[in-house]
Amino acid sequence: MRYITGAVALGAALVLGGLATSAQAVAAPAQSGRSSGLYAPSELVLTVGQGASRATATVQRAVSLSCMPKAGGSHPNPIAACDQLRTVAGDFNAVTAAPSQRLCTKEWAPIVVTADGVWQGKRVSYSYTFANPCAMTDGRGSVFDF
Amino acid sequence: MRYITGAVALGAALVLGGLATSAQAVAAPAQSGRSSGLYAPSELVLTVGQGASRATATVQRAVSLSCMPKAGGSHPNPIAACDQLRTVAGDFNAVTAAPSQRLCTKEWAPIVVTADGVWQGKRVSYSYTFANPCAMTDGRGSVFDF
Repeated sequence: MRYITGAVALGAALVLGGLATSAQAVAAPAQSGRSSGLYAPSELVLTVGQGASRATATVQRAVSLSCMPKAGGSHPNPIAACDQLRTVAGDFNAVTAAPSQRLCTKEWAPIVVTADGVWQGKRVSYSYTFANPCAMTDGRGSVFDF
Repeated sequence: MRYITGAVALGAALVLGGLATSAQAVAAPAQSGRSSGLYAPSELVLTVGQGASRATATVQRAVSLSCMPKAGGSHPNPIAACDQLRTVAGDFNAVTAAPSQRLCTKEWAPIVVTADGVWQGKRVSYSYTFANPCAMTDGRGSVFDF
């Protein structure tokens, strides 16, 4: 079921991406070997850091994630991460706000995750602060699991 | 000469990256298959768009670029792009402000390039506006050539 949903979302993304970029394609014909006009790009840098906010946190890990035309990047599981993002239509709040499935202490040892780049042609600049590592790693799926 | 400079810069980056992350490595031991503590990550999303500023420009093309531990990403020439960035120590102004080597018209048809993510562990959020496509594509090297 999850894969069916993903496939439908991907199909919709392809159609919408094609519509969104068709005007550009007329103004600037696609060049050989370049992505312009073929689809809306989805390229992200994801980070995990220790601290309370993007501005103050130290980056501990960072990966790149490409979702079009195929899943790739330095993310350890790009296919699952892209599938998860397509399922929520690129809404990172739906990734980080998934309900917790186990008990975590309420210790304040904040972890900041960030996502920057482009999702289906639109700029993304997202950050979210988890109270501690337990709160972060529980049930959030593949996107920030690196 | 360019390659020698690049190699020296890479060596320095490896040493400095090792020093910078050694404190983290003690606090958070590297997990199997994860990059924490081994080196400072360099992961970027680069975009080219039509418009006068990041906020208003439409993204036309976007690629990811990973430079550690090896060059990769959806950038069409990641090895040359990483080499160029190492040579200028990640200073994107040194990429976009390279002197023009031919005459361009002064037509105002602005192109915005952006770089977001992490360079050797430090956050990057850069944008630069070229007056027109000629001014952008002349002599800037590989980083924004996609």
